[in-house]
Amino acid sequence: MLTLSVALEERSYPIFVGRNVIEQAELWLPYIRSHQVLIVTNATIAPLYLDRVKAQLAGKQVDEVILPDGEGYKTLEYVNKIFDVLLEKGHNRTTTLIALGGGVVGDMTGFAAASYQRGVDFIQIPTTLLSQVDSSVGGKTGVNHPLGKNMIGAFHQPRAVLADLTTLDTLPERELSAGLAEVIKYGLIIDAPFLQWLEDNMPALLQRDTAALAYAIHRSCEIKADVVAQDEREGGVRALLNLGHTFGHAIEAHQGYGAWLHGEAVAAGTMMAARMSAKLGWISAADLTRTEQVLLAAGLPVKAPVDMNEDDFMRRMAVDKKVMHGQLRLILLKALGEAVITGDYPVEALSATLAESA
Amino acid sequence: MLTLSVALEERSYPIFVGRNVIEQAELWLPYIRSHQVLIVTNATIAPLYLDRVKAQLAGKQVDEVILPDGEGYKTLEYVNKIFDVLLEKGHNRTTTLIALGGGVVGDMTGFAAASYQRGVDFIQIPTTLLSQVDSSVGGKTGVNHPLGKNMIGAFHQPRAVLADLTTLDTLPERELSAGLAEVIKYGLIIDAPFLQWLEDNMPALLQRDTAALAYAIHRSCEIKADVVAQDEREGGVRALLNLGHTFGHAIEAHQGYGAWLHGEAVAAGTMMAARMSAKLGWISAADLTRTEQVLLAAGLPVKAPVDMNEDDFMRRMAVDKKVMHGQLRLILLKALGEAVITGDYPVEALSATLAESA
Repeated sequence: MLTLSVALEERSYPIFVGRNVIEQAELWLPYIRSHQVLIVTNATIAPLYLDRVKAQLAGKQVDEVILPDGEGYKTLEYVNKIFDVLLEKGHNRTTTLIALGGGVVGDMTGFAAASYQRGVDFIQIPTTLLSQVDSSVGGKTGVNHPLGKNMIGAFHQPRAVLADLTTLDTLPERELSAGLAEVIKYGLIIDAPFLQWLEDNMPALLQRDTAALAYAIHRSCEIKADVVAQDEREGGVRALLNLGHTFGHAIEAHQGYGAWLHGEAVAAGTMMAARMSAKLGWISAADLTRTEQVLLAAGLPVKAPVDMNEDDFMRRMAVDKKVMHGQLRLILLKALGEAVITGDYPVEALSATLAESA
Repeated sequence: MLTLSVALEERSYPIFVGRNVIEQAELWLPYIRSHQVLIVTNATIAPLYLDRVKAQLAGKQVDEVILPDGEGYKTLEYVNKIFDVLLEKGHNRTTTLIALGGGVVGDMTGFAAASYQRGVDFIQIPTTLLSQVDSSVGGKTGVNHPLGKNMIGAFHQPRAVLADLTTLDTLPERELSAGLAEVIKYGLIIDAPFLQWLEDNMPALLQRDTAALAYAIHRSCEIKADVVAQDEREGGVRALLNLGHTFGHAIEAHQGYGAWLHGEAVAAGTMMAARMSAKLGWISAADLTRTEQVLLAAGLPVKAPVDMNEDDFMRRMAVDKKVMHGQLRLILLKALGEAVITGDYPVEALSATLAESA
């Protein structure tokens, strides 16, 4: 069992990483202050893990919401279904929500917790690699809008995060790879030795070796926790975590949410950011190849969809949250292990990157 | 022009009270940090004041959303219409929303601002007495759910509040009275001399005497700002501001939102709290009569709807946010000018109060 803490003063919380964390209720039950609990999960995850969680909550009022599975349901309309159950079952503002599932469930449950009676507690039990290393940590919650991803939401920190490695046993390979996109991202933006470790240990990770996964998840959460502690509301350094995401969000939106997995779009977007950084002369051709190789080794796409042209990207990126005063700020690489956020680049470099993306 | 400040450290903000505050843009334009502005108002208010506000915003990108008028539209669905326009018009996360209208517009706009891209700036221009003395100050935002009022929302402070007395010139008498219910509440919970002043000046207030209104609004905002500064997220003393609201929300929900004005329901609820306080021997029969007289003088109801019985109240109050661990905590009066929040009362006193409410 590995434990780390997200240091946010009175909103600090622990992350537990290991096998069968769910069954170690003595670790996490102290973070539920209420008699009432609502577990939010989806139709894929419920048959696998819902009973394991409920078994730990004997003596409490435990209600559940089982959402349909998929990014297409990450909408205000489905968050409202969580409110319906909270109110029908009489949950008051001391209640605790538990998000049991991947990033979609976590983001929606977190936003429901942020908004129900103007804010109640919630706990994250992420069941995908992507949500264990990224979305369950840091308090970003929200839903999509037809015109933009994650455009509606709140910053609302969980009381605890349980990264139970047993939930990865059933994860489809494609989703394991998608999670590795965010793990690789941490190496690229801030930690060159971790990137090297990932290159060396990619076979073990793909074989779901417990020690390798535990290390990768713990190190990813450590990096994210450190960045979030410095900049909870993304005024500065936290934006670096969005490497590949501006391009990636455009891909997801263009393809229709859910067609590409978030991690897949981030991988292709990361390659676009790397190619643009190389065009600017910031990273070498060898660095670019290394970036491509580690993404390919993880089973990830390194090109945008063939049917997306420059205009498609520009139109989708114009509503990106990183657009400041009409200038598109991007996260680019100064080196492998060193990302920067900048609007200071020749627009031709962006244009060429978009044109050559597929 | 009277000015006061809500002291919340980096989230502190000014409240300007006076005639033609809207036209004194040098006061409030500094609180708009963006080139983009979205004005949210309703179909009643737009023809009266929208152009006055827009005239102050020359040189900015100014968009608008005109909602239908009424508490019945205070829903997630209509907040989503605000998101639609923000995204269609390309508003980024430096944008500023302006709420131009009464409490419904303010609450919805505030929640939209809290949730759009996880939080953007907003300014309140309340156009009813009720919103000028209460809902525009303190950062409570949200929408209703069919099973409970204000059940979905956020704490999100405005950057400035403009209480322009000229907007009260067109306010229907019934709404002026509804606003006075909250003004009287401040006297009852915390400020006996202000209650006395209200008793003495009720005719001037009903005649919309500028000096009287300005004083009443300023003093109400001062009290609210002081309470909010002590307890922004309603962990303690802020709950006192809900005198009459637990009963009042039940009345509003039972009658269907909008049938009774919020202030009318609060007035009837305040009388129920006063009657229960008298039953408990905390206030005298003379105090009870004084409470009733000042509410009547303001043109307010002092009884619940005749068709509401004890069961109707209990069912509606069971989902009230003040229900703690199954125990219904109420705001009651220890004296005129001194409210307390308590769950320590014989249940028979509540039961009798509900049974005799109409």
